[in-house]
Amino acid sequence: MVFGRENRPPMEKPKRNIYLKMKTLQQAREIWKDRTGTLRTAEEQVQAVSGLGRVTSGPITSLRSVPHYHGAAMDGYAVHAADTYGASDTTPIRLRVGQSAHPVDTGDPLPDGADAVIMIEHVESVSHSEIEIRSATFPWQHVRKVGEDIVAGELLLPQQHVLRPADVGSLLAAGILTVRFFARPQVFIQPTGSEIIPADRAADTKHGEIVEFNGAILAGMVVECGGVPVLGGVVADEYDSLKEVLREGVESSADVVLIIAGSSAGSQDYTAAIIEELGEVLVHGVAMMPGKPVILGMVKGKPVVGIPGYPVSAVMAFEQFVRPLLYSLLGSPAPAFPTVSAILGRKLPSKLGLEEFARMILGRVDDRLVAMPIQRGAGIITSLTRADAILQIPQELEGIDEGAEVEVRLLRPGDQLDYTLIMIGSHDNTIDLIANELKGRDSRINLSSSNVGSLGGLMALRRRQAHFAGSHLLDTQTGEYNFSYVERYLKGTPVRLVQLAMREQGLLVGKANPKAIGGIEDLLRPDVVFVNRQGGSGTRVLFDYCLQQRGFPEGQINGYDEEEFTHMSVAVNILSGRADAGMAIYSSAKALDLGFIPIGRERYDLVISESALSDFKMQTVLDIIASDSFRRIVTSMGGYDVSNSGRIMGIWDGEKWVERFGG
Amino acid sequence: MVFGRENRPPMEKPKRNIYLKMKTLQQAREIWKDRTGTLRTAEEQVQAVSGLGRVTSGPITSLRSVPHYHGAAMDGYAVHAADTYGASDTTPIRLRVGQSAHPVDTGDPLPDGADAVIMIEHVESVSHSEIEIRSATFPWQHVRKVGEDIVAGELLLPQQHVLRPADVGSLLAAGILTVRFFARPQVFIQPTGSEIIPADRAADTKHGEIVEFNGAILAGMVVECGGVPVLGGVVADEYDSLKEVLREGVESSADVVLIIAGSSAGSQDYTAAIIEELGEVLVHGVAMMPGKPVILGMVKGKPVVGIPGYPVSAVMAFEQFVRPLLYSLLGSPAPAFPTVSAILGRKLPSKLGLEEFARMILGRVDDRLVAMPIQRGAGIITSLTRADAILQIPQELEGIDEGAEVEVRLLRPGDQLDYTLIMIGSHDNTIDLIANELKGRDSRINLSSSNVGSLGGLMALRRRQAHFAGSHLLDTQTGEYNFSYVERYLKGTPVRLVQLAMREQGLLVGKANPKAIGGIEDLLRPDVVFVNRQGGSGTRVLFDYCLQQRGFPEGQINGYDEEEFTHMSVAVNILSGRADAGMAIYSSAKALDLGFIPIGRERYDLVISESALSDFKMQTVLDIIASDSFRRIVTSMGGYDVSNSGRIMGIWDGEKWVERFGG
Repeated sequence: MVFGRENRPPMEKPKRNIYLKMKTLQQAREIWKDRTGTLRTAEEQVQAVSGLGRVTSGPITSLRSVPHYHGAAMDGYAVHAADTYGASDTTPIRLRVGQSAHPVDTGDPLPDGADAVIMIEHVESVSHSEIEIRSATFPWQHVRKVGEDIVAGELLLPQQHVLRPADVGSLLAAGILTVRFFARPQVFIQPTGSEIIPADRAADTKHGEIVEFNGAILAGMVVECGGVPVLGGVVADEYDSLKEVLREGVESSADVVLIIAGSSAGSQDYTAAIIEELGEVLVHGVAMMPGKPVILGMVKGKPVVGIPGYPVSAVMAFEQFVRPLLYSLLGSPAPAFPTVSAILGRKLPSKLGLEEFARMILGRVDDRLVAMPIQRGAGIITSLTRADAILQIPQELEGIDEGAEVEVRLLRPGDQLDYTLIMIGSHDNTIDLIANELKGRDSRINLSSSNVGSLGGLMALRRRQAHFAGSHLLDTQTGEYNFSYVERYLKGTPVRLVQLAMREQGLLVGKANPKAIGGIEDLLRPDVVFVNRQGGSGTRVLFDYCLQQRGFPEGQINGYDEEEFTHMSVAVNILSGRADAGMAIYSSAKALDLGFIPIGRERYDLVISESALSDFKMQTVLDIIASDSFRRIVTSMGGYDVSNSGRIMGIWDGEKWVERFGG
Repeated sequence: MVFGRENRPPMEKPKRNIYLKMKTLQQAREIWKDRTGTLRTAEEQVQAVSGLGRVTSGPITSLRSVPHYHGAAMDGYAVHAADTYGASDTTPIRLRVGQSAHPVDTGDPLPDGADAVIMIEHVESVSHSEIEIRSATFPWQHVRKVGEDIVAGELLLPQQHVLRPADVGSLLAAGILTVRFFARPQVFIQPTGSEIIPADRAADTKHGEIVEFNGAILAGMVVECGGVPVLGGVVADEYDSLKEVLREGVESSADVVLIIAGSSAGSQDYTAAIIEELGEVLVHGVAMMPGKPVILGMVKGKPVVGIPGYPVSAVMAFEQFVRPLLYSLLGSPAPAFPTVSAILGRKLPSKLGLEEFARMILGRVDDRLVAMPIQRGAGIITSLTRADAILQIPQELEGIDEGAEVEVRLLRPGDQLDYTLIMIGSHDNTIDLIANELKGRDSRINLSSSNVGSLGGLMALRRRQAHFAGSHLLDTQTGEYNFSYVERYLKGTPVRLVQLAMREQGLLVGKANPKAIGGIEDLLRPDVVFVNRQGGSGTRVLFDYCLQQRGFPEGQINGYDEEEFTHMSVAVNILSGRADAGMAIYSSAKALDLGFIPIGRERYDLVISESALSDFKMQTVLDIIASDSFRRIVTSMGGYDVSNSGRIMGIWDGEKWVERFGG
């Protein structure tokens, strides 16, 4: 814990590992495969009905034929075919029930001497004991013969077969109740870190404590690979404790041991050193990002992986090294990830020599599948949960240009691509609400949004990277919203402006307003720290306009250069005491229970690409905005006026306003 | 049971249901959706860590910000940025450890007053209590700020979201330990039928008994759809018993009740009548095949489905009606099945007005993905387990022509398409062995084989429908195998002949040879029943040659017209007493412990398309054939001479023999 080390002298810090022997991703994967490729889990005998998804460890041959007797394939009468020869409309033949004709239902065995079945529809009953037929049958007509489906001794399933529901049926039919499978690979997952607390205390963390959630993510990924996770309790970053748990893990029944390092290179040093002491480090450090600090080792013949502490790094390291290993332990290569070809919506720089994995938003805009990077760090778990796809940038490249065709790996089912709406632009708290309502209307619709400010949204529309944008850009000359910006930035791009709401902007301050801030003028005080919004955001335009109107110089405001990208981030800065005031909408103050000093009302519009307007997803958004339930919830959030929600504010044909309302 | 009904007079047979109100597949699906579309399972609170794959029943908002404190994003020293201003190589600045500089590891909280972290790499230590820096930092550099990942109150997951491993991580990080999900749909599965015995007695069935395995298949499919199956015991085909179990099923906690009908239309009548009595039959009979007798009903607000008794029919009915229902109960449409475009290798007739589902073998031959129908009935479960794909033939069509491009639904992972070898031709028992060995060498390789006889195999090569064929065609003029047939049928198709083995052909007879058959001449006896192989098979050519040599007329042989398609089917005919003798290879006699009267040795070759020869799959087959282990196992099967296995017998360039050995 840092608290105990506050005064630790500098030289006591552990020797830093500088990845002297860093491997390329391909090298590391090859080394790993060479050393683990022949390992297999034990074989075990399992009930066939419990074997779904399991992998056979040897061939399975049928214990008997199916059907195992000649049976009727139709309802009717079992006969000896020769008895029916010559029957016709003019020369019907009569058969005695119980002697030369035997009533059978489908599946019934043929009586001795019978070799055909006449369908009930082709039989006339003459009396209780006699039937008449008017056409002949031939031997084995409408009979399910022995072995027609499966012949005793034939190969039913080969080795390395993944059991599917229908296979279970064929096994039972063939008299096989239990099957030898490779055991599911058991994975021991050991979280470490002195500042880490177990997930079951997640609801009640203290300052400086981090909830252990990487273990839960990895456990889920193990399950998805068909393995069985065993999640250990958290162990402190101490050499001896770590050594002890690694030894326990290796000596347990687990097939693979994962040590989730504390997030620092320092604690990873311990892991590598301990693996080296107990066994062998094969790779320490791979030229990939996220996931660079991964450690691959073998201890007493068992694969041990040091997983980096940042969540996205942990996921990438797992996918590159643990996932293939788990399949390999069952004798199979890992299934290919589903991929799709897309157009890169924004230039993506990348380090030469480093295999990079960028999280992307993905959606079909104007018949092009557009991939937009989510530019967040490896410590940001939501960069993964909010992503639609992963773009792998090869180490040979220094980046990929905007407009390039790229192959991305899907994180959502491919058939949902047409159900993803892309919104880029200003952030508003009601967008969450729309995203949730969309799922309620049609669970396939996914709203992927990127908060880059109002102007960034208009740019995205111009570049055909989004279906719609959110904008609240004040024209300080006219006092109008959005219109002049559309005229200036969207020449050639037809859009429609639909009012989402009027909303209250103001200064967020601490709950009890501890610095007694009364208005914008107080931001000039030396004891007040401000937090700003980024350039191009509507709120920044509004704030700068307020300063300008009052003739206040920016330079005198503490924190003016410190920029956040959303209302909620500004609110969090106030809540955490990092800043004393920031400009944001009322609902963000209400969400975090902060004080609010109103500055003014503004119009927030959805700017919708005309080409997306007829799309049912977009129509669903408009339906939601116009719905009473939506207005009710937004009103209850506070600071919104929804009386004109859904109103068309303007229709821009790319050159001029076809319609334009309000001002 | 039929035994109890043998003398039942004809008029006692139940009223036949002739599907008067038969619906098209689309009509039936619409009726079903209309009536069940708004049903949902109950909501339940579940541990987030146990929620993988579950569907959220409402939006989930974060309980706190992540990170919830300002923390170090790097290992190093936490400082007040302003203290570092002006530091440079020429004007280094010294900071006192514990006062103006605090050692921190990644994740540690910033001490009060600190607003930036200097990386350890950029620090010189002067003494135990002092460090020196040579460049300035700026506020919030290398700091993970509060809410950088998740802001308290923001939407973490919308409703209708399927939980993935990374989502579990974000939930725990945001302080959320339990989540409200829709409960997994519970499906009560009721097998019925007086001749049906439970699957746990599968190893020991008596004459006339059929193992219940449809229930196990459906249970597996329920699991694959995220549901929970409850498999009931088998109930006899009696009105009152069936009514009682249906009532119990509907009154249980199950969300859906499936009644698996006995295989006859008769017993399905009971199911429909009982649903009608207790509730409402919505649809009885759908114009689809397999699956026509499906019954859709509602009893006390619960969906009840009468599932047809033939296994393939049961699977198709489930996929069309139960699968979409299970997803709908969770508020989602069922995910689309993966499909691929292929060329139909053989004309496929189909009934107008009937939506047909044909099981297909699928493989890439000469860069064309070829789909070949498996022409077997709905009662043949292996027609499904051996299939690679399903072709749905719309009811508007009377069939599809050979060579047409068709969209087929994949039954194996799509990335395995390039790993499927297609063999068409004569059947040999060693082919099973090769299929199993292939899986052992590379688990992705799948050998799909179709037994159509030697000549059929050559035809398939000519039509580019197979990678290789198996052939043992005797030229009765020359006494040579295969060569003249290749010359005649494969003009323009280069192939290579590789000897698989020499093998013993002979007459299979009962174990103790009860009819005292000594040779082919005994087949003329009136008390001997023969079973033949189909025309075009090598064995048939050989048998006809034997008759011709001896001057025996075919017409005098009982059963000459009764044809089977494989050696093992012939063997099964002998075993079950249907025939007394049949021509087949020795290994089939050995497999079923039958008597064998040798007739002669023949050469069985693999005929390999030149275009497939360099493919690694084909090379793997050749490796296997040449391996000692393969030869050992084949020898142990009996009746094979493998001394020349793997030998190239001929290289045919499409016009002439480039090489040709033996004779």
